[in-house]
Amino acid sequence: MNYSKLFPKTRREDPKDGSSPATKLLVRAGFIDQISRGIWTMATLGLKVRRNIERIVREEMEKAGAIELELPILQPRELWDETKRWDKYMHAQIAFHLRDRKNVDYILAPTAEEVITDFARKNVRTVYDLPITLWQMSPKFRDELRPRQGIIRGREFVMKDAYSFDSTKEGMLDSYEKMDAAYNAVFTRCGFNFIKVEADSGSIGGSGSAEFMAVTQFGEDTLLYCTQCGYGGNQEKAKAFFQPYINRGRDALQLLETPNVKTVEQLEVFTKIPASKMVKTIVLIADEKPVIVSMRGDLEISEVKLAGLLSATSVETAPFDVVERVTNAPVGFAGPINLYGKTDVPYFFDYSVEGLQNFLCGANKQDVHYIGVNSGRDFPEITEYKDLSKAIAGQHCSNCQEGVFEEKHGIELGHIFQLQQVYSRPMKATFKDNSNEAIPYWMGCYGIGVSRIIQAIVEQNYDDRGIIWPFALAPFKVIVIPVKPENDRTARDAYNTIREAGIDTVLDDRDVRIGEKLTDAELQGWPIQVVVGRSWESEQKVEVRWRDTRSYDHALFSVTKNSLPSALLTSEEFITLIKKLQNQKN
Amino acid sequence: MNYSKLFPKTRREDPKDGSSPATKLLVRAGFIDQISRGIWTMATLGLKVRRNIERIVREEMEKAGAIELELPILQPRELWDETKRWDKYMHAQIAFHLRDRKNVDYILAPTAEEVITDFARKNVRTVYDLPITLWQMSPKFRDELRPRQGIIRGREFVMKDAYSFDSTKEGMLDSYEKMDAAYNAVFTRCGFNFIKVEADSGSIGGSGSAEFMAVTQFGEDTLLYCTQCGYGGNQEKAKAFFQPYINRGRDALQLLETPNVKTVEQLEVFTKIPASKMVKTIVLIADEKPVIVSMRGDLEISEVKLAGLLSATSVETAPFDVVERVTNAPVGFAGPINLYGKTDVPYFFDYSVEGLQNFLCGANKQDVHYIGVNSGRDFPEITEYKDLSKAIAGQHCSNCQEGVFEEKHGIELGHIFQLQQVYSRPMKATFKDNSNEAIPYWMGCYGIGVSRIIQAIVEQNYDDRGIIWPFALAPFKVIVIPVKPENDRTARDAYNTIREAGIDTVLDDRDVRIGEKLTDAELQGWPIQVVVGRSWESEQKVEVRWRDTRSYDHALFSVTKNSLPSALLTSEEFITLIKKLQNQKN
Repeated sequence: MNYSKLFPKTRREDPKDGSSPATKLLVRAGFIDQISRGIWTMATLGLKVRRNIERIVREEMEKAGAIELELPILQPRELWDETKRWDKYMHAQIAFHLRDRKNVDYILAPTAEEVITDFARKNVRTVYDLPITLWQMSPKFRDELRPRQGIIRGREFVMKDAYSFDSTKEGMLDSYEKMDAAYNAVFTRCGFNFIKVEADSGSIGGSGSAEFMAVTQFGEDTLLYCTQCGYGGNQEKAKAFFQPYINRGRDALQLLETPNVKTVEQLEVFTKIPASKMVKTIVLIADEKPVIVSMRGDLEISEVKLAGLLSATSVETAPFDVVERVTNAPVGFAGPINLYGKTDVPYFFDYSVEGLQNFLCGANKQDVHYIGVNSGRDFPEITEYKDLSKAIAGQHCSNCQEGVFEEKHGIELGHIFQLQQVYSRPMKATFKDNSNEAIPYWMGCYGIGVSRIIQAIVEQNYDDRGIIWPFALAPFKVIVIPVKPENDRTARDAYNTIREAGIDTVLDDRDVRIGEKLTDAELQGWPIQVVVGRSWESEQKVEVRWRDTRSYDHALFSVTKNSLPSALLTSEEFITLIKKLQNQKN
Repeated sequence: MNYSKLFPKTRREDPKDGSSPATKLLVRAGFIDQISRGIWTMATLGLKVRRNIERIVREEMEKAGAIELELPILQPRELWDETKRWDKYMHAQIAFHLRDRKNVDYILAPTAEEVITDFARKNVRTVYDLPITLWQMSPKFRDELRPRQGIIRGREFVMKDAYSFDSTKEGMLDSYEKMDAAYNAVFTRCGFNFIKVEADSGSIGGSGSAEFMAVTQFGEDTLLYCTQCGYGGNQEKAKAFFQPYINRGRDALQLLETPNVKTVEQLEVFTKIPASKMVKTIVLIADEKPVIVSMRGDLEISEVKLAGLLSATSVETAPFDVVERVTNAPVGFAGPINLYGKTDVPYFFDYSVEGLQNFLCGANKQDVHYIGVNSGRDFPEITEYKDLSKAIAGQHCSNCQEGVFEEKHGIELGHIFQLQQVYSRPMKATFKDNSNEAIPYWMGCYGIGVSRIIQAIVEQNYDDRGIIWPFALAPFKVIVIPVKPENDRTARDAYNTIREAGIDTVLDDRDVRIGEKLTDAELQGWPIQVVVGRSWESEQKVEVRWRDTRSYDHALFSVTKNSLPSALLTSEEFITLIKKLQNQKN
């Protein structure tokens, strides 16, 4: 392609709404263009990157035996009513929806479990039609409260979604494993530094789900990752291991006057007792009903874990009047003594409290706390602990019980779910087994944020010159740059040679100075620059420059201060290099 | 591909909502599946056909130098307010629209003039950036009053839309010609029997537009086509040539009592005068103001032509009270005498009246008409005639003035428009010319109904066995069918040979009877069937069957009664045939 045909041109100024380095670079380099809050145009170059991603995804889906189709964007409410998700989504205000001229409600595809289950129940009748995995690549929509970070969290985006249908739970697990492997292959081929973490199933439902996360400084998700065993989890979901507390014997229970001292921080200052020796007691509202949770003072409640435990749609902190009604005390003074075992309100203890002795807690009375508290003596023995606190860096990993969690930030690239029968059962989506019984399908669903990958890979691959595209995703692998007008013909010959080898190449045919050409090439991040100039005239060599200083061929290339790795190559060496590139061409 | 991986399976029963042969065939053959009114799923096979169409379109767009991008589906109202199209579209109830959580209005892309013009004005600054043509392939939406005929008139569909930007009107015409040529190439390569007709610009606006129409019995558009010169027009827009009337001298003007005789039909019976010797006078409301039109009694008003003449958004028949107020007479008795030249209401005469002598018309009085009426004597001379009547079959063509119109039915495949400056002017989308003056772009826009092509081509290519795919669009060009299980291995060898030649091929690997395999193959319309059976065992020959009985190779194939054209081929002949196919492969 001729560079002059690229549109729009690069910009020197940062966009106003550039909330991360990658957003700024993609806009300045002419890959994407914002039209409204969270709504973006894919310019030619952005679209070419997306097609490269789509090709990789399609190849891996085909290898996994999944069948492609395309479901509509407008999904009728009646299907969403069957699973009761219409009300949930409307309540959460997360979906775009509209009424047609006949006052029928439609939702703009945020995901497609209902639609695909409907398609399956019309077409999959017997056990012989199973297993089957169907998938599509298509626009999806979310009315985000805070669209941000360019196309990482847009309101309109392209998602690949796949859905597996099996006749047994074991089959479901097999299909899930296959997709897991396919996702690993996709993100590896894209060139990501990624980790897989345990995740919450959220509004999709089912149980058992994992996220694939690109690790980056600007990731909006907080992850905990065990460097010892590789286990990772979203902060909301990761499970820490609490090493047993040493039994030091029980102190006497004492009342402590704490006038107007309510929060953990205030108590630490007032009592000099560390937060890890306190038990805080929190009242929450889960699906409109109160719940009590006691946990160690230095930890935070995970509302996601509590929602999962209760199968609740919504969990939030209780208003003051509810706290006071439940605990008979003002906010800040709740505690298990005279409450646990004596209230009708469901009451849970977090694992962090298991075995903790001689702790401080509220006395359910204004301005008073207890110290030297011990369960089984001061309130009934706790028979079962639950995982309800957010994991934090430094805690032990629950998987290997040895490694220690590190905190990382990540961008979600993909999410896989074991849906069990949560869609097929209410939708009566069944097959006939050998004994002619109607059995709901065992389902899984699997998403990849295709358009956000364009930006996520840039978050991992840029420097102060601009973008550094990994070879597989680069819209053009090579740019050929004539230094002066007299090099135009030779440059076009080089361009044709490379193109004929089947490599996506662009020729910078602009009538601008070499400095501007190189600056644009570095901003736009083509992996390889072929510069045709003086060395061609003097010794019939082209200069080959490598955009990614981390991955160049050390044997061939040299680096001087402030420059890209480069080599002067003859025609023969140049052709050898092209052949090497061709093999790399994914 | 293995046939057993295709999904969904073929069906024997017609769908309930099969309003045309092609809809029924596409559903039964497993290409598309309806989910809601006018909303369809593209199954694997339908998607494969669409990709073939998309590839042809993309290649022709690239040849024409157009640049691909992808605009969002959610378009903010503020852009549509700039051109005042928001109100027009809301009034017409034709667009889906929604509000986000912040009460901002969005329209679901029915077309993208505003969005692309906004993109251009942000990025095209000088005359050196022009001309440029941008295009996209993306979902579009229309809240059709009556979705019908499967995916011909759906509410969600894929459209290719292109937009050209030029610095001069001549440039705009050049860009328009280029797209015209590209469209001809696209529809020819797809295998259509199509004609190009003059069309109305409708809600898109501008002036100068043409439609590309697939001629079929089930087309919803009525076209007039001159077999002599090839001129064609949509019925609403086609212009007829009226041969000059012979001057027969003027009769005396007479009043005729016509008690309760109001309509043209009633007058023909009552007076024995043919409708072509009557002038009827109609009152309409254009953008809320009355307009009078007089035309020959045997013709119908074209509201589209009147709207074009007046640049009106809406034109409709006037209610009775308006007719009576304008003509001072009850409905059915209007006429030009004492009205034309004496009223403030705009008054137009259709070409059909030019030179007509001694005609009958209403007298603007209850139960009275005039006969022997002549313009210039009985009412003021008409200085200018307008084209306001719908053309009909049998009229002369206005282009060659010799040929005669035939009526055809068609499905719109594409539509090209000269937009002039109707978008760029209100949106202040300008470039700086050499003298630094800001000039609005000269624009064109160009649409292709990509998903409806899937069905339109079937409307032109089927028989009582099923679909007959043209080679270029067929999802698989060849199906290899083993007759019995013992032929499976040979069949797979044949399948591999064909696939290695680069031809999309499917192997019928099902464990079903040969009759079912052949019935499905004919329903699904693969161009070529390779049947491996007894003749392979006895004489090492495969049977090659040709789906399209109209286009087979007469030298090679023979046809017996009730069969497809077929030939028994040896391996060598078979490979020669594959090579021939490979060359045909578009």
